[in-house]
Amino acid sequence: DFLHALGEVRPAFGASTDDLERCRLNGIVDCGERHQHIYRRTMLLAEQVKVSRGSPLITCLLEGPSGSGKTAMAATVGIESDFPYVKIISAETMIGLSESSKCAQIVKVFEDAYKSPLSIVVLDGIERLLEYVAIGPRFSNLISQTLLVLLKRLPPKGKKILVIGTTSEAGFLDSVGLCDAFSVTYHVPTLKTEDAKKVLQQLNVFSNDDVDSAAEALNDMPIKKLYMVVEMAAQGEHGGTAEAIYSGKEKIQISHFYDCLQDIARY
Amino acid sequence: DFLHALGEVRPAFGASTDDLERCRLNGIVDCGERHQHIYRRTMLLAEQVKVSRGSPLITCLLEGPSGSGKTAMAATVGIESDFPYVKIISAETMIGLSESSKCAQIVKVFEDAYKSPLSIVVLDGIERLLEYVAIGPRFSNLISQTLLVLLKRLPPKGKKILVIGTTSEAGFLDSVGLCDAFSVTYHVPTLKTEDAKKVLQQLNVFSNDDVDSAAEALNDMPIKKLYMVVEMAAQGEHGGTAEAIYSGKEKIQISHFYDCLQDIARY
Amino acid sequence: DFLHALGEVRPAFGASTDDLERCRLNGIVDCGERHQHIYRRTMLLAEQVKVSRGSPLITCLLEGPSGSGKTAMAATVGIESDFPYVKIISAETMIGLSESSKCAQIVKVFEDAYKSPLSIVVLDGIERLLEYVAIGPRFSNLISQTLLVLLKRLPPKGKKILVIGTTSEAGFLDSVGLCDAFSVTYHVPTLKTEDAKKVLQQLNVFSNDDVDSAAEALNDMPIKKLYMVVEMAAQGEHGGTAEAIYSGKEKIQISHFYDCLQDIARY
Amino acid sequence: DFLHALGEVRPAFGASTDDLERCRLNGIVDCGERHQHIYRRTMLLAEQVKVSRGSPLITCLLEGPSGSGKTAMAATVGIESDFPYVKIISAETMIGLSESSKCAQIVKVFEDAYKSPLSIVVLDGIERLLEYVAIGPRFSNLISQTLLVLLKRLPPKGKKILVIGTTSEAGFLDSVGLCDAFSVTYHVPTLKTEDAKKVLQQLNVFSNDDVDSAAEALNDMPIKKLYMVVEMAAQGEHGGTAEAIYSGKEKIQISHFYDCLQDIARY
Amino acid sequence: DFLHALGEVRPAFGASTDDLERCRLNGIVDCGERHQHIYRRTMLLAEQVKVSRGSPLITCLLEGPSGSGKTAMAATVGIESDFPYVKIISAETMIGLSESSKCAQIVKVFEDAYKSPLSIVVLDGIERLLEYVAIGPRFSNLISQTLLVLLKRLPPKGKKILVIGTTSEAGFLDSVGLCDAFSVTYHVPTLKTEDAKKVLQQLNVFSNDDVDSAAEALNDMPIKKLYMVVEMAAQGEHGGTAEAIYSGKEKIQISHFYDCLQDIARY
Amino acid sequence: DFLHALGEVRPAFGASTDDLERCRLNGIVDCGERHQHIYRRTMLLAEQVKVSRGSPLITCLLEGPSGSGKTAMAATVGIESDFPYVKIISAETMIGLSESSKCAQIVKVFEDAYKSPLSIVVLDGIERLLEYVAIGPRFSNLISQTLLVLLKRLPPKGKKILVIGTTSEAGFLDSVGLCDAFSVTYHVPTLKTEDAKKVLQQLNVFSNDDVDSAAEALNDMPIKKLYMVVEMAAQGEHGGTAEAIYSGKEKIQISHFYDCLQDIARY
Ligand SMILES: Nc1ncnc2c1ncn2[C@@H]1O[C@H](COP(=O)(O)OP(=O)(O)OP(=O)(O)O)[C@@H](O)[C@H]1O
Ligand SMILES: Nc1ncnc2c1ncn2[C@@H]1O[C@H](COP(=O)(O)OP(=O)(O)OP(=O)(O)O)[C@@H](O)[C@H]1O
Ligand SMILES: Nc1ncnc2c1ncn2[C@@H]1O[C@H](COP(=O)(O)OP(=O)(O)OP(=O)(O)O)[C@@H](O)[C@H]1O
Ligand SMILES: Nc1ncnc2c1ncn2[C@@H]1O[C@H](COP(=O)(O)OP(=O)(O)OP(=O)(O)O)[C@@H](O)[C@H]1O
Ligand SMILES: Nc1ncnc2c1ncn2[C@@H]1O[C@H](COP(=O)(O)OP(=O)(O)OP(=O)(O)O)[C@@H](O)[C@H]1O
Ligand SMILES: Nc1ncnc2c1ncn2[C@@H]1O[C@H](COP(=O)(O)OP(=O)(O)OP(=O)(O)O)[C@@H](O)[C@H]1O
Ligand SMILES: [Mg+2]
Ligand SMILES: [Mg+2]
Ligand SMILES: [Mg+2]
Ligand SMILES: [Mg+2]
Ligand SMILES: [Mg+2]
Ligand SMILES: [Mg+2]
Repeated sequence: DFLHALGEVRPAFGASTDDLERCRLNGIVDCGERHQHIYRRTMLLAEQVKVSRGSPLITCLLEGPSGSGKTAMAATVGIESDFPYVKIISAETMIGLSESSKCAQIVKVFEDAYKSPLSIVVLDGIERLLEYVAIGPRFSNLISQTLLVLLKRLPPKGKKILVIGTTSEAGFLDSVGLCDAFSVTYHVPTLKTEDAKKVLQQLNVFSNDDVDSAAEALNDMPIKKLYMVVEMAAQGEHGGTAEAIYSGKEKIQISHFYDCLQDIARY
Repeated sequence: DFLHALGEVRPAFGASTDDLERCRLNGIVDCGERHQHIYRRTMLLAEQVKVSRGSPLITCLLEGPSGSGKTAMAATVGIESDFPYVKIISAETMIGLSESSKCAQIVKVFEDAYKSPLSIVVLDGIERLLEYVAIGPRFSNLISQTLLVLLKRLPPKGKKILVIGTTSEAGFLDSVGLCDAFSVTYHVPTLKTEDAKKVLQQLNVFSNDDVDSAAEALNDMPIKKLYMVVEMAAQGEHGGTAEAIYSGKEKIQISHFYDCLQDIARY
Repeated sequence: DFLHALGEVRPAFGASTDDLERCRLNGIVDCGERHQHIYRRTMLLAEQVKVSRGSPLITCLLEGPSGSGKTAMAATVGIESDFPYVKIISAETMIGLSESSKCAQIVKVFEDAYKSPLSIVVLDGIERLLEYVAIGPRFSNLISQTLLVLLKRLPPKGKKILVIGTTSEAGFLDSVGLCDAFSVTYHVPTLKTEDAKKVLQQLNVFSNDDVDSAAEALNDMPIKKLYMVVEMAAQGEHGGTAEAIYSGKEKIQISHFYDCLQDIARY
Repeated sequence: DFLHALGEVRPAFGASTDDLERCRLNGIVDCGERHQHIYRRTMLLAEQVKVSRGSPLITCLLEGPSGSGKTAMAATVGIESDFPYVKIISAETMIGLSESSKCAQIVKVFEDAYKSPLSIVVLDGIERLLEYVAIGPRFSNLISQTLLVLLKRLPPKGKKILVIGTTSEAGFLDSVGLCDAFSVTYHVPTLKTEDAKKVLQQLNVFSNDDVDSAAEALNDMPIKKLYMVVEMAAQGEHGGTAEAIYSGKEKIQISHFYDCLQDIARY
Repeated sequence: DFLHALGEVRPAFGASTDDLERCRLNGIVDCGERHQHIYRRTMLLAEQVKVSRGSPLITCLLEGPSGSGKTAMAATVGIESDFPYVKIISAETMIGLSESSKCAQIVKVFEDAYKSPLSIVVLDGIERLLEYVAIGPRFSNLISQTLLVLLKRLPPKGKKILVIGTTSEAGFLDSVGLCDAFSVTYHVPTLKTEDAKKVLQQLNVFSNDDVDSAAEALNDMPIKKLYMVVEMAAQGEHGGTAEAIYSGKEKIQISHFYDCLQDIARY
Repeated sequence: DFLHALGEVRPAFGASTDDLERCRLNGIVDCGERHQHIYRRTMLLAEQVKVSRGSPLITCLLEGPSGSGKTAMAATVGIESDFPYVKIISAETMIGLSESSKCAQIVKVFEDAYKSPLSIVVLDGIERLLEYVAIGPRFSNLISQTLLVLLKRLPPKGKKILVIGTTSEAGFLDSVGLCDAFSVTYHVPTLKTEDAKKVLQQLNVFSNDDVDSAAEALNDMPIKKLYMVVEMAAQGEHGGTAEAIYSGKEKIQISHFYDCLQDIARY
């Protein structure tokens, strides 16, 4: 089911399908049972909000390491949910704005959502929305207070809303009370060896002999980094082999793959 | 008595009955003796302020974990008290305002209250009014000073006022001296197994065989979370069963109920 | 003598008698020898400033726990002193003002006082004037510097002034150097059992059998809280008995009194 | 010599003699050898600056406990020095001003001084000029930087200036580098028993039998507090005896004197 | 290959070749295998971004001690890459600007880059762009948030971009999460004895007998400091010998070279 | 050579000779070998910048205790260097300015310098330019960032610049990374006994018998404080002997000299 998402997108009012699609640039591949479970439960929440009598507001947090697929999953739920209003709030469209302008934009999205009978609002990369930095730590309390209130404030009578948050800094969110503000929280994990193997088989860039050792080396890697290191390796030691590899004519040299893996893991 | 509150609301000048009702979206069920005791004592304070000669200002703090029913109880006292002016001050209507605007709005409500012979002002979610965040900690000293003064300032001659505060951060309020500023404080608790059982029996969504184990599993849960997890469970593992369960045709599957409980308790 | 204060108030230029009276809403009862001693010494300072050649400015701090009677005592000195200018500076009339506006208002009162040959200025609740909060701690340095200077600045030739400060946060005032800025400091205490007994006898709301145990239970209580708990108890367990008790027809039930005491002492 | 200061004041350009006189409201009595030594050395610095070829700027800090006589001594040097420009910079005339306004006023005084061939500038109560408070600690860095530069900046060719600073917070001044910024520093002490005795003999308010024990009790008291406690005691236990005592008709009761001493020393 | 860079520069749209050349004032000499390896890998990333399907944005951080050659290397990649848009963002052109102006300038460069099909943006001296200072530490969170977002934000469809960052404060960048924001990180090292020897042989300013001991003394020196100390030494103890040494007529006196080395290493 | 500086000053474009001269009010005497060594090395840097091909910017820091002669030495290099543009940047001319105005003035001096083929810029008392205070510590990060960039930014093609910084707070400068920003650093020391003796002999104010013990007592004194204490002592215990001593008619009394030394060393 999760994997069918890619094919069947429908126009959304809040965000153009394009915007949502842009959130999963490498598409959606099967990343193993744990990813699928989270996807199914989040889709259930979308249904619950639709039929609920006593909970016109349900909130759900997807947290996990950077690149583990949180944004892509939230976007997929948005696309698949069939809700008339789906909107992503992200720091990317608010670079350089003052705290209060950001705040106003966030509130605006919720106000718009309150006008639709059914809405999904994605708070993408909450640590970045809060301008969080570990030193201090520093962050915008204005924005964090705004989110704390918005995550509790009921929509007007007859309106219903599902809020999906994503973050790679669950510890920080917890310390400002934002984790408790969500009804449910799911941990989106890195890939285990067997998940990585599944993905590599779908990509088909290693020789059959190398897939197992490559997957082993990728244990505990987020799906997004897996894509990066595979592409680096496809390039070849002296460049120029990417074409041949993606077209299936050649396979990635496992030793060069290990080198690239090291460059990426250095920090 | 507490339970009769739902049925007999009267028009209030400060807050429309609608506003107050919106604070108890899931209605009022019998949550056990401890909840009822607090309700009765708070109603007595309302009477005391009415007949008092030397105390034209009485202040009462309801504190307890998030979702334990503080706001719903304060709203119920407001509705039942029969006072001509009842007003709820909450962060929800002040999102994004500057500290001083919030301050002005709060003062305005008190000034309005001073014009009525008898008033109830609910300071709902004081930690949120103060823009409190645990890191630092940070909060608005402007607003905390304002509350400290308002909680001591006598109304004009002949006017009387009951202030009810609610908070889920009693420790913080204590550290800024706000707990001491209230005449009395009551702790609104989570549900114990026997309280939860009472509530489940009223909801009637479990088979008789499952009620006891469900109540056991809900020990120490706030009433609001109980509603959330019951609704999630009513949805069914694959969605679509909510209708049947609320209409009494089916009962919640206890195993799925445990799963939902885990999702909610993960953090 | 202290007890005669209530009856013989004279019009004051700075503050209307009404304002000063409002500071002792429950009147003045005999609270025991220690309260009386402080009252007499403060009255002596008023006389000293009147006849002094070398000290046109005398400053006195009344400190002690919240509700111990500091403000009521300062107001009583103001009323009894017979000085043409008596003024109370309190945070209550400056809610929401900026630091610098508060500062200007404080300076204004002193400038006015400098125009009168003899003045009393009461700085009431200095910790609140300074917007003090224990976390941090935070406070207004602008206002604390202003007070530090005003407490040392001599009035113009021929003018004399007595400044009485009150505070329930002597430790904080000490740490900002404000205690040392006062010529003398008196500690206004809570009531001991024998003081409480004296007060209860004057109030006459307990049966003779209960007065001793009630007074015992009130040991170490500030006078203001004593009034609150007596009033709560007079209400009765189910409300409605206050009238009968204050008119002397009934007495307070000692067991209900203990219950009320617990509600108040919970924090 | 020091004691002759009182009688022979000359008009000064910067500060009216009145302003300087107001700094020693209780006159100048003989406080013992240590006070006199400091006075003589400071007068020598005034002469040095007058005749110096290589040091057109000399700076001297008088530090010591509050009330030990620093301001009175600086004023006396200003009066006795015979310099055409003498000016006192004190926080008293700058209440409520912003840091930068204070800064501008301070600079203005120096600029004025630079126009006179010989000037004395008294920076009185530097900790107050810097808005110092021990918590934090907090202070105005703008003003401290200004003083640090002014204490080193040479006057224009041909002009000479002596800067006298006073402070009761030498430790703080040291920590911001201001002590090192002065050429010399003198510690103005409290009175020892023999100094106090000398002063009491001059005041002549005790019976001969009591002078010794009174002086003993005053050991380690600053001269200013000595004046306060003597005046309180002169008042008598029930007020009204001051006149008689200052006119020599009666003497202070030693037991009442001890009581007053305790009130003052309580903190 | 790396060494050929100097000779074959091509006009760039974003930055004039002059600007890029100015970043390697002492030219490019062979600094040993480790420098060359990093150069080759960074050039490969430029090629990857060119041919990539799934990664229109690749980011690479060069970190290492001050003067180790990071900026010169980034400039060389920019020159050699043949990309139509190459731009260096450095604190040098933004002295004294406010945080938000700096922020706007940085965003502007990226917006410009998004218009070119292929771009390289060099964030040079990121710690300086962030106004980092170790005390506190302090830095501009506005700019760090901007970089965090820009390092993740995809360029518009069809555009590709390589971002090269340089820093000598990798620890700080790590603590604000900026290291993790880069796809790959390379450490640009100081010279080891054998690297230094290679460089000295190319410079040809020591007699053959001295090269080895000079190189030994230069162990662990950054390439930029090597140039400085050689030039100081070429000056001679009494000045005036630089010409003769650079023209090859004389050689540097090894003992004077040691003296200069000490001056430079004193801190 | 260093000593000849006094006599042979030439007009400079940036700073009038007068300004530079004012920095060495007590002239330049021989302070021993260590002072001379630093002076010679700094003069060599001036020559290096003149003839250098690869280093159009050289930066040198003079650090040492207050009064050790750093400013006087920098001024002397400026005067002796013969460079067409010599300018001193000091906090004295920027009292009370905002951080950004100071910043602008500093940048202006560098921009002016960039117009001259050869320039010397003296950053005098960098800790004061940065508004440094040890408590906190506090300082202007705006100015420190500006200096960090200016100390690295190359002048335009064909222009050359020597920057000399002075500071008595090397530890602080180190902690903000400013020490590393200078190419070389020299420590300007206090006087040792033998240095002090040399200076005293040149001043000729002690009898031959006393010179040795006086010099001994002056061990570890900065040259500037030596001048101060000698002048105080020349004054005599009762004033008035300065003239006679400087004209050689009398000698300083060694015992009075010791007294003055104590006054100065008290802190
Ligand atoms: N099953 C999948 N689930 C999620 N992402 C997938 C899946 N299959 C492929 N992807 C790809 O993996 C990438 C996941 O990156 P994504 O931006 O969602 O990570 P993230 O967890 O949001 O990271 P960050 O914390 O940095 O925001 C996307 O490019 C997406 O197209
Ligand atoms: N006896 C009861 N007392 C209180 N609330 C009840 C009761 N019975 C049912 N409820 C329902 O339980 C919910 C209690 O939520 P409420 O918002 O009052 O919690 P809260 O303690 O204010 O939480 P928070 O700290 O998050 O503000 C309401 O939806 C209310 O309708
Ligand atoms: N002898 C008395 N002295 C003082 N107050 C008395 C006395 N007798 C009765 N009272 C009453 O006790 C109360 C004392 O309260 P008051 O406001 O003066 O306390 P406080 O010490 O100023 O408290 P806070 O620190 O909170 O300002 C007043 O209502 C006053 O009327
Ligand atoms: N010999 C003396 N020296 C100084 N003050 C004297 C002397 N004799 C009498 N006095 C009186 O003692 C008082 C000294 O107070 P003064 O204000 O100078 O103290 P201070 O040290 O400046 O205190 P603070 O630190 O609070 O500013 C003055 O009233 C002054 O008239
Ligand atoms: N192979 C080389 N790689 C890098 N720089 C070289 C090389 N050969 C010579 N150089 C010269 O060495 C100097 C390196 O200085 P550069 O400014 O690049 O150092 P940096 O690491 O950026 O220092 P900072 O951290 O202070 O910015 C330049 O002057 C450059 O011309
Ligand atoms: N050889 C010398 N070198 C330096 N200064 C000398 C020398 N001989 C005499 N002097 C005199 O010594 C004084 C040195 O003071 P200067 O202001 O240079 O000290 P500084 O180290 O800059 O102190 P600060 O750290 O307080 O700025 C000047 O008055 C100068 O005329
Ligand atoms: Mg994401
Ligand atoms: Mg609530
Ligand atoms: Mg009070
Ligand atoms: Mg003083
Ligand atoms: Mg660089
Ligand atoms: Mg100097």
